[in-house]
Amino acid sequence: MKVSAIITLKKDVLDPQGKVIHQTLDGMGFKGVNEVRQGKYFEIDVKENDPKKAQKIVEDMCNKLLANLVIENYKIIEIQ
Amino acid sequence: MKVSAIITLKKDVLDPQGKVIHQTLDGMGFKGVNEVRQGKYFEIDVKENDPKKAQKIVEDMCNKLLANLVIENYKIIEIQ
Repeated sequence: MKVSAIITLKKDVLDPQGKVIHQTLDGMGFKGVNEVRQGKYFEIDVKENDPKKAQKIVEDMCNKLLANLVIENYKIIEIQ
Repeated sequence: MKVSAIITLKKDVLDPQGKVIHQTLDGMGFKGVNEVRQGKYFEIDVKENDPKKAQKIVEDMCNKLLANLVIENYKIIEIQ
């Protein structure tokens, strides 16, 4: 199954990359932007046909490798 | 409204970053992985209360700045 996960910075953590994108968009004429936050996206194809087990495996990967839980959150957004 | 967009490499484009993550997961004992693809995630808060217009604005941003359409695809996944 393919499991999609998103990793985002926690709310109170500064996102300098997002700020630069915000400024660039502003400079390009996109004036109505309040905030831009950037994150990471992973699509992991695991050899597991049970959606719940596949989700568990990817959550485990997020906890152990993909996300830095001190400053980041992760969310599984799709399993197919 | 907050619009969330995902930017991924097109299917036939090599993803060396994903490959490294795949190898690392393998080394950590996650043996049942077929493929890992990495992408980017953006959460853009725009001053626009109409969901359709907000989506249009962010699509425009993806076309002009956020995505490299030669090698990447984008997808709006959430508007709230």
